[in-house]
Amino acid sequence: MIDPALLDPTGNSNGKGSDLVALTRAICDIPSVSGDEKALADAIEVLLRGCAHLEVLRDGDALVARTNLGRDRRVVVAGHIDTVPIADNLPTRLAGAGDDAVLWGRGTVDMLGGVAVALALAVELGAPGSEPAHDLTWIFYDHEEVDSALNGLGRLARNHPELLRGDFAILGEPTDAGIEGGCNGTMRIELRTRGVAAHSARAWIGENAIHAVAPALARLAAYEPREVEVDGLVYREGLNAVRIEGGIAGNVIPDACVVEVNYRFAPSRSVEEAEAHLREVFEGFDVVVTDAAGGARPGLDDPLAAEFVRSVLATTGGVPAPKYGWTDVARFSELGVPAVNFGPGDPLLAHKDDEHLPVAQLAQCRDALRAWLLGG
Amino acid sequence: MIDPALLDPTGNSNGKGSDLVALTRAICDIPSVSGDEKALADAIEVLLRGCAHLEVLRDGDALVARTNLGRDRRVVVAGHIDTVPIADNLPTRLAGAGDDAVLWGRGTVDMLGGVAVALALAVELGAPGSEPAHDLTWIFYDHEEVDSALNGLGRLARNHPELLRGDFAILGEPTDAGIEGGCNGTMRIELRTRGVAAHSARAWIGENAIHAVAPALARLAAYEPREVEVDGLVYREGLNAVRIEGGIAGNVIPDACVVEVNYRFAPSRSVEEAEAHLREVFEGFDVVVTDAAGGARPGLDDPLAAEFVRSVLATTGGVPAPKYGWTDVARFSELGVPAVNFGPGDPLLAHKDDEHLPVAQLAQCRDALRAWLLGG
Repeated sequence: MIDPALLDPTGNSNGKGSDLVALTRAICDIPSVSGDEKALADAIEVLLRGCAHLEVLRDGDALVARTNLGRDRRVVVAGHIDTVPIADNLPTRLAGAGDDAVLWGRGTVDMLGGVAVALALAVELGAPGSEPAHDLTWIFYDHEEVDSALNGLGRLARNHPELLRGDFAILGEPTDAGIEGGCNGTMRIELRTRGVAAHSARAWIGENAIHAVAPALARLAAYEPREVEVDGLVYREGLNAVRIEGGIAGNVIPDACVVEVNYRFAPSRSVEEAEAHLREVFEGFDVVVTDAAGGARPGLDDPLAAEFVRSVLATTGGVPAPKYGWTDVARFSELGVPAVNFGPGDPLLAHKDDEHLPVAQLAQCRDALRAWLLGG
Repeated sequence: MIDPALLDPTGNSNGKGSDLVALTRAICDIPSVSGDEKALADAIEVLLRGCAHLEVLRDGDALVARTNLGRDRRVVVAGHIDTVPIADNLPTRLAGAGDDAVLWGRGTVDMLGGVAVALALAVELGAPGSEPAHDLTWIFYDHEEVDSALNGLGRLARNHPELLRGDFAILGEPTDAGIEGGCNGTMRIELRTRGVAAHSARAWIGENAIHAVAPALARLAAYEPREVEVDGLVYREGLNAVRIEGGIAGNVIPDACVVEVNYRFAPSRSVEEAEAHLREVFEGFDVVVTDAAGGARPGLDDPLAAEFVRSVLATTGGVPAPKYGWTDVARFSELGVPAVNFGPGDPLLAHKDDEHLPVAQLAQCRDALRAWLLGG
């Protein structure tokens, strides 16, 4: 359970709106490692269902809450409620005070801070006395940190595609309260070599499959990843071996070796083009694609997106940046909904055991988002 | 138990001496995978202790049986009684008949055929009416197929060095009934690279430890192993990666990679020289030696060895060849005892699931060895 008082926009101690620090802590302190989101989803559901201005649907441990105000345009705000495994970093710990305070613990960055911001605004905007400029769809979903086939947003897109529709989407992934547009695509391939096993005392009878990967590693080591400008943002690519395995025993010539390679490619390149590029790079090798997800163009040339960027940056400063990591903005992009990442927390701290959040970013994100959603 | 009648030099069906095929089968059919040699050692001990002409000592599952005839010179004949794990290839199976018969099963080649030959001659030579030209030491030992620290011959050399003394040693390892002199040395090293872990979406923050092994694999792939003549025999070397491992997860730049390399080097090169060579080949890499055993020069220039070779080849034909694999002849070599490999079975079938022995080689080896030991 989360105390509803934490979400009262006028009720917190400093009078500046909902108590986001206490709310973020309450959310983080309900463990919600992927697959175990039920308790947190239950707590969020209670709060959403308490709002007369929201129509609520639950699918597994995903929740969708929508206003139906008859506005011309609809904005979707989405965030995942699962975290990577806890590493002795819960319950949360608050260090320092006031605007300089830092909140430590699993989920503070990725991305329960963003969930707290969204939850506070979901309860506030559209309630009596609050007139958002657009209709709003709030999505809280499960299983983002694991196999993409389990992803709750993907499941919603399959089960209720109409609920993901909108004119613009904001994903609350950590961006240090800046705006990160689109995302790189990702592809994993396996390069497999075959040899002939033999006793290593008579190596000439065999054929060494580990030696056979030498040219592939040489090409990887020499590869110069591109920097590609897409819609005004520069995406940096990457091509890396992430796993290598070969060998039978200390006295046997290995008959098989496998190299797993991860390619991160700019959103201007399709999955098919990415695969063709890898087949060219690794010509002569047996290439098997094991996993692939296209990127998302930043879409900042969309009028609603441009308006959002202008409004937020007026509050936060800075310029839009590319998102390098693959995020669920790509799912919106696939549905034809322009989407950006915008949330509290340093993305480089995601998944780290020392994950921590400067709490000032919570209010900064909420205030910028609220101002724009109210037509500011 | 092994039926003593199988060892009666005059009692077998074809009248040509002990029934080596039945004896080999009886020995193979007592499972004796390394560490589990007790039953076979017990059975051999009973037979040896039944011989008044032999002085018998047991150390663990190793047995040493010696004649004390006051001869000028002493010849050692040794063989290990353990096998690699059984692969549904016991009990033995005899296919065909007479001299063309083939005996299938674990241990037939490596090296219980050689053990049968030695056991038959141990019981026969020096018994009343038999006058060997040299004093004889018969050694049957455990744990050859596993970690060299467990090796029964090595243990005997530590506990009873005097029992291994002799003027010449014959190891009954499979040589297809030919003579293989000396053996290559073997060294295992690990090459380790270090990198910096990072999310693969931001690879430039990390440093890829798998890419860093590329030059080492390129050097291995390009390496041209030497052929080295030592005392008239040509030894073929080999340098091979036998294992490679690296990687943390499909989206993480790996921070460590290890390549295990096995170097087989001619007996003209010492362990120290072998290490120096590898440090030169892998200059720039962190090289750790994990295992090393020097080779053994063939020693065929020793007068007793030369006499043995002449005598055996008069029966079997052929010419002496180098032994490529490391064998326990190196232990005798270290003790200053010239030693050769001579035994039934194709060494290329050792450790294979389809291990099998043309039984004609059993009598061929026994007859050649008996003739020489009797001063023929």
